Parts: sequence; structure tokens; C-alpha cells
Amino acid sequence: MAVVAGLRTFGMKGTSWLWRSRGAPLSTSFCSSGSAATAQRESESRPTSMRQQDGIRNIVLSNPKKRNALSLAMLKSLRSDILHEAESRDLRVIIIAAEGPVFSSGHDLKELTDAQGRDYHTEVFQTCSEVMMLIRNHPVPIIAMVNGLATAAGCQLVASCDIAVASDKSSFATPGVNVGLFCSTPAVALGRAVPRKVALEMLFTGEPISAHEAVRHGLISKVVSEAQLEEETMKIAKKIASLSRSVVALGKATFYKQLPQDLRTAYYLASQAMVDNLALQDGQEGIEAFIQKRKPIWSH
Amino acid sequence: MAVVAGLRTFGMKGTSWLWRSRGAPLSTSFCSSGSAATAQRESESRPTSMRQQDGIRNIVLSNPKKRNALSLAMLKSLRSDILHEAESRDLRVIIIAAEGPVFSSGHDLKELTDAQGRDYHTEVFQTCSEVMMLIRNHPVPIIAMVNGLATAAGCQLVASCDIAVASDKSSFATPGVNVGLFCSTPAVALGRAVPRKVALEMLFTGEPISAHEAVRHGLISKVVSEAQLEEETMKIAKKIASLSRSVVALGKATFYKQLPQDLRTAYYLASQAMVDNLALQDGQEGIEAFIQKRKPIWSH
Amino acid sequence: MAVVAGLRTFGMKGTSWLWRSRGAPLSTSFCSSGSAATAQRESESRPTSMRQQDGIRNIVLSNPKKRNALSLAMLKSLRSDILHEAESRDLRVIIIAAEGPVFSSGHDLKELTDAQGRDYHTEVFQTCSEVMMLIRNHPVPIIAMVNGLATAAGCQLVASCDIAVASDKSSFATPGVNVGLFCSTPAVALGRAVPRKVALEMLFTGEPISAHEAVRHGLISKVVSEAQLEEETMKIAKKIASLSRSVVALGKATFYKQLPQDLRTAYYLASQAMVDNLALQDGQEGIEAFIQKRKPIWSH
Repeated sequence: MAVVAGLRTFGMKGTSWLWRSRGAPLSTSFCSSGSAATAQRESESRPTSMRQQDGIRNIVLSNPKKRNALSLAMLKSLRSDILHEAESRDLRVIIIAAEGPVFSSGHDLKELTDAQGRDYHTEVFQTCSEVMMLIRNHPVPIIAMVNGLATAAGCQLVASCDIAVASDKSSFATPGVNVGLFCSTPAVALGRAVPRKVALEMLFTGEPISAHEAVRHGLISKVVSEAQLEEETMKIAKKIASLSRSVVALGKATFYKQLPQDLRTAYYLASQAMVDNLALQDGQEGIEAFIQKRKPIWSH
Repeated sequence: MAVVAGLRTFGMKGTSWLWRSRGAPLSTSFCSSGSAATAQRESESRPTSMRQQDGIRNIVLSNPKKRNALSLAMLKSLRSDILHEAESRDLRVIIIAAEGPVFSSGHDLKELTDAQGRDYHTEVFQTCSEVMMLIRNHPVPIIAMVNGLATAAGCQLVASCDIAVASDKSSFATPGVNVGLFCSTPAVALGRAVPRKVALEMLFTGEPISAHEAVRHGLISKVVSEAQLEEETMKIAKKIASLSRSVVALGKATFYKQLPQDLRTAYYLASQAMVDNLALQDGQEGIEAFIQKRKPIWSH
Repeated sequence: MAVVAGLRTFGMKGTSWLWRSRGAPLSTSFCSSGSAATAQRESESRPTSMRQQDGIRNIVLSNPKKRNALSLAMLKSLRSDILHEAESRDLRVIIIAAEGPVFSSGHDLKELTDAQGRDYHTEVFQTCSEVMMLIRNHPVPIIAMVNGLATAAGCQLVASCDIAVASDKSSFATPGVNVGLFCSTPAVALGRAVPRKVALEMLFTGEPISAHEAVRHGLISKVVSEAQLEEETMKIAKKIASLSRSVVALGKATFYKQLPQDLRTAYYLASQAMVDNLALQDGQEGIEAFIQKRKPIWSH
């Protein structure tokens, strides 16, 4: 009962997963290793930056001096950028990247001292969980582009994205246990991405795994050289941006809806989604175009 | 409530998972790349062919001109061949193979146009889901033997089998998103076979993965050269055919029954199954033979 | 209903997962391949031996002549050693190893004949399930150190540990089907550790997989040479022993609690655990030490 009662006040406010975010600056540097003057000025005011072109939104964690720690301000800024015009037909895919040699070092430990108090701690973890669930509930695919170390809640952020591409210099760890704070919330995402024994060794020892180990165990989708990272990520993003947004959104929602169900319920839900998909304008357009051997024209 | 009500009318008709299939021809070519005159005549009347020897049933998708598309006729023929004398003690294991360079290209898109209508679409996906669940609910192990491309519902068929052996020229994709029809039903099987990030990249981009990637991520059990494919598959099938059918059937049913349960319920169910297994005639025969250092004689 | 009623009488006695074990000898050989005179004398009286030093408890299966079969006596001895002073702050991590070339061959088939009867069979499987669940419910991490063959319930024991390190001469199998006793209880642990197709091929054919295959599929955490096995295992154990016991215990319990839940409930439970973790004495000590750039002093 306590769980149920607690859940009622936990997570998304209101009935909709989506609430309006305040406006966010649109023109900032995309490249995580870039250091354009514009980007540096942006990051003075907001810990993330955002720009969007051809349906692809790039959100960049932009506080490299603090190793892109997921402070409450960073989490709120990230949430705002993810939610910004989420229902716009012009948005097809989101990439989350980072400036500097550390993708993200996780929570800002200075926000988790006794001085801040239990209520503040609760707000930090609740906001973090919201951002992670938002990624799953968002209508467009969200890709993590990782070029460096991702630890604790930073590793959780990578595990929570739909797709993750990393350079071979990247590594991943959940080292909270070293400072007496077990990575229990990162473990929610990690434990659903990699085999149990891999997750537990990472959690109990705090030791990092390489990008190659990460791809072998399913934590990331792909590992490439640093030089190829942006090209490979953009290749996937451009492919997704070329598809029907409504079809992709229905598919993403159905995937996460059916996955935890028993097989029969899963097939019932997915079969319904297939029939609904065929009834979409883009569903019939796609099949007609295929039969007529022409390129489909999506209405999204 | 809608889900529950819908489920009542979904899936298997009646209370039994098993209903009688009409007779099906027994002597057809097994080899997926073979082209014996007999097999060609068979495939004119039925889209699948079937033959059985020494407890091993070979079902072959036999419409290579249409890339073994899982049309409604193909699905019904496959269902019939899987169900044919399923309770016979002479049947110990089933292999599903295919003729020609494509294992299966998935649904026949010509059956999914507006012209066919929503009811027909529903029948297609319902029949397809039935076949996939039938594989899991069938008393004998079902092996996919793949030599070529398996896409969409074809990939789902491979993912749904208990075991899958593929040649290294095989590849696997869920490219429905390209034609505006997200592979939501294939994703039910795919999402339960491979890590989430692998499944989502395949579903969102439609790009194929190689047989080596497929085995690394758990989509298939084994990858061998094309020359070894039949030998390796038959080795597994012969081994299973040499075992007690009743013991294997109890084990298969228990495996799928306990897997989605919490650990305590799973151990309760599995411990009961162990005691029941020991009470089987073949349970005691096997252990006696082991202690007496002789070969067991199964009564199946 | 039968399942619920049956569950009430199944598994742990009483409401606590923990009940007192009788005292057990503390000074026995640790090395699984060692053959010190002391260890041999110990194994005459008890099928397992135990010693503890610097927070690390080593439990050794010590009946190599019987291939360390998990007889009822062995299971009870193992349970006793795992439970021995489980709540002591001096215990930080447990290693389960084995003497001789076979880690464990699983149940003793001589205990499973008709002559023993259904009630005895039930006790064997119930005790075995208790030991496996105890590993998960125990407050400290439990590591399997494997140097040789682990089959049936022996493979289940490895799969049930939190972490497993194996030498490259190790192999893993569930061959019960060969003697007419499907490995249904081992399948509970195996099916939760490796992809479904890997588990089913092992269960249906009884064929072993190598240590390298085992690590690739998540059955074990790490594979090393035989010469490095003890060093590598001790490295992990020493790292865990250096951490706060209360933090590790909370983290382990939370991991297994949240894993089967839906994402929202999982985040709710894990966020609560994070806040509770911060309220622990060691939670604040760890963060203070980190900020003050000094080594933490745990109170456990």
C-alpha cells in the first residue's frame, strides 16, 4: 500500500507525460569536443545547449568544468530541452551529447550532503528519474552520443536512451559505492540493459568497463573510433529523420508497452498497433509507394 | 478492461492450444537449397512442405519466388504442418527451413493495402501471432535453420523458435519502418531475444545485422558455414530425437511457465516439475540406467 | 490458488529469510585445487569447509571424490556456512569455491531413485531452491570461483551467485535430459542469466559451453587463466571487503527488489533507497570524505 500511495505522488505531474517547457536557445555548438565562442557564452547561462536542424535536435551537456555533473539545474535544463516542442512535426530524433572529455560524472555530490536535507535529496532523485522516464515516453527516438567517461547517473543516462553510440575511448562505471552511495537509481537502467552479473560486478566494485565491453553486453548499440563518432551517430539520426514521425512514434510507444507483458498480451497489443499503423495515412502511403516502386511522401 | 475483453477473443480458439490440422503431404524435399522435381510440384499446391523421418519433422517454406513471404496462406500452411499429429510419440523435434536465398521476407504487403480492409489485416496478424505462440506451446523443440535473409515477420519466426542455427551468409532485419509499417509484432519476439538497444536500433533504422552479430546478441543459437548448416542442425535435432519425448515436453513447458515468474514462484513451479519428472516412467528409467551404467530405453 | 497455497509452505521457514545455523569449522583450505592434509580431514566430517579472514569468507565444496555432488547433506552444509553469522559486521563478502577438478556435478542421482520416494525428492529440491534464494537474499555479495566443470544444479549454483569468476578450463552444462531428468530447477537460474536461445540449446541437448561462451552470454562475470583465478577473485573480494557493509547490503537488496518491477515502480523504490542511503552514517561519511579529499572511515 505504501508503494501504491507513494507512486501516486511520484514521477510525472498531472496525467500527461508532457508539460510545456520554457523556451530554450536554439543555436549552440553541436560537437561535443568543439569549443566555439558562442557555445561557451551559452553555457554560462544554461548548463545544456540545444540546436535543431532537419528534424534532428542536438542537446549538449555543457558544463565540462564540472564534468557535466547532473546537478538539479542540469537535470532541469536537460528536461526542458527534451520537452521543448516535443509534439512538433519538425522534430524527428534527439541526440544527447556532451562537451569535454567526460560525458557526465553523475549527480553533483555537493547537492547530496546533510546540509541540503532529505527533501532536497528527494527532489534530485525524483527529477533525475523523471528525465530517464521521459526519454522512454518521448515520441521520438533519443540517441546518446558518448565520447568519454560516463559514470553513475551519467551511465544511467546512456543506458536510458533508446540507442547509444560511443567512441572507443569511452568507458562506463557505477562507482557510487566508493563514496558510500550505492548507484541504486543508475542500477534501474543498467540492470535492464546488461546481464545481471555484469551489472552487479560494476555496482559492487565500482570498476569501469570499456566501450567494447559495453557494446558486447548491450549497454550501448555501437562503438566506433572517435573520428567516426559524429558521422556514425548522424547517419543513424538522418535515417530516422527520413522516416514517418507518426509511424516511429507509434512503434516506440508500442515497443515499451508490450515488452513487460506476457507473450499473449504482448501479441494482442502489438497486433492492434499493426492494424492501427496500417490505418495511419503514412501506413497506407508507405505500402502504396512500395508496390508502385516509388519513394513515399510522409505527412508525419 | 478493453485489453482483457480483447484478449478473450484473441489467440487460440477454444481452451486447448491444440486443434486438429487437416492432413498435409509428407514426402517433400528437406534441403532448403534443393530443387527436386517432387518438391517443386508440392509447392505449387501448398506454400510449405513437410516430411518426417526418425522423429525429426522438416517443414520447408517453399515459395522462393515470393521470397517465402508469410502470406495468410503461408501462415495457415505452416500452422497446419506444425500442428500435424503434434501429440504423436513419433514426433520428437521440428526443423523449420526455407527454399531459396531468402528465409522469409515477412508479411505479404499486397495483403495489407487499404483494399483488403481492417478485418483482413486483423486476421493476418492474429494468425501470425498464433503461429509464433504455437511454437512456444508445442510439446517438442522447434529449430529454425536459416540460410539467407530473414526480415520482419521472417525475423520474428526465427526469434520465436526455441533454437536457431544460421549460416554465416544469413542476415536479420526489421525494416518495416521504411515502408511506413513499424515492425511492432516482430518486436515482440525480437525484444525478448536481444538486448533492448540492439532491438531498437534494428527497429528504428531498419538496417540488417549479420549472423555473427545475431549470435552475439542471442537472436540465434549458433552460426556455421553454409556447407555445415544442415549437418550442424541435424546434429542438434538427432540429439533431441534420441531423448525421452515426455521428459523434453515437461521441461519445455516448465521453462516457459517459470521464466516470467518471480524467483520464489519460479522455484516452486520448477521444483514441482522435477518431482513430477522423477515420477515419469522415463524419469526413473533414465536414473536407473545411469546407475546401472547402461543405455536407457525410453517409453516416451 | 494451488500455486498460492503451495507457496505458503514452500521456501524459507518463518517470516525471516535468516535462521541460525549451527557452528561450522573455520580453518580449512581455501584453494580449490589445494589438497592440504587439514582440508582432507575436515571433509571427512562435513562436505563443505569454511574459513574467514579480513571480512572475506571462503566456503569450499569439499567432496571431490563424489564430484562435489549437491547431495542433501552438501546442500545443508552449504546453507549452514552461508548463514553462519550472516549479520556479523565482520562478514563483507563470501566466495564459494570447490576442491578438485569438478566444481559440482549437481544433485546426487542416488538420492533421486524410486526407493527414496516423493517426499525425499521434494526435500532435496526445496532445500536446493532455498540455498539459491538465500544467495540472492543474503546481505553480502556472494562470488562463485569456478575451476572446472559445473553441471546441472552445480551450474545453477554458479548462475545464482551475484558474481562468478571462472578459469578458462571451466565449462558449464545442464545435461539432466540425458538421464531423463530435465534440468528444470537449474533452468530457473540459467534462464535468468543467459539469452533464451542459449539456455534452451543447453537444456535440450545437454551439451556443455566453454568459459568463454559463458562470459559472452552473461552466465559468468569474468574468465581468466587457471593461474590467475584466485588472484582475480580475491581482487574483487578485497575491493568489496573495503567498502561499507551497510551501503552494499542496501544496494544489493534494492537491486533485486526493483529489477522485476515496471520502470516507474523501480525508480520509486530506487529513489527511496538513494535517500535512505544518504541518511546512513556511512552515506554521509563517504560524501564528506570525498569532498574533503580524504579516505572514508566506515562504521558498517
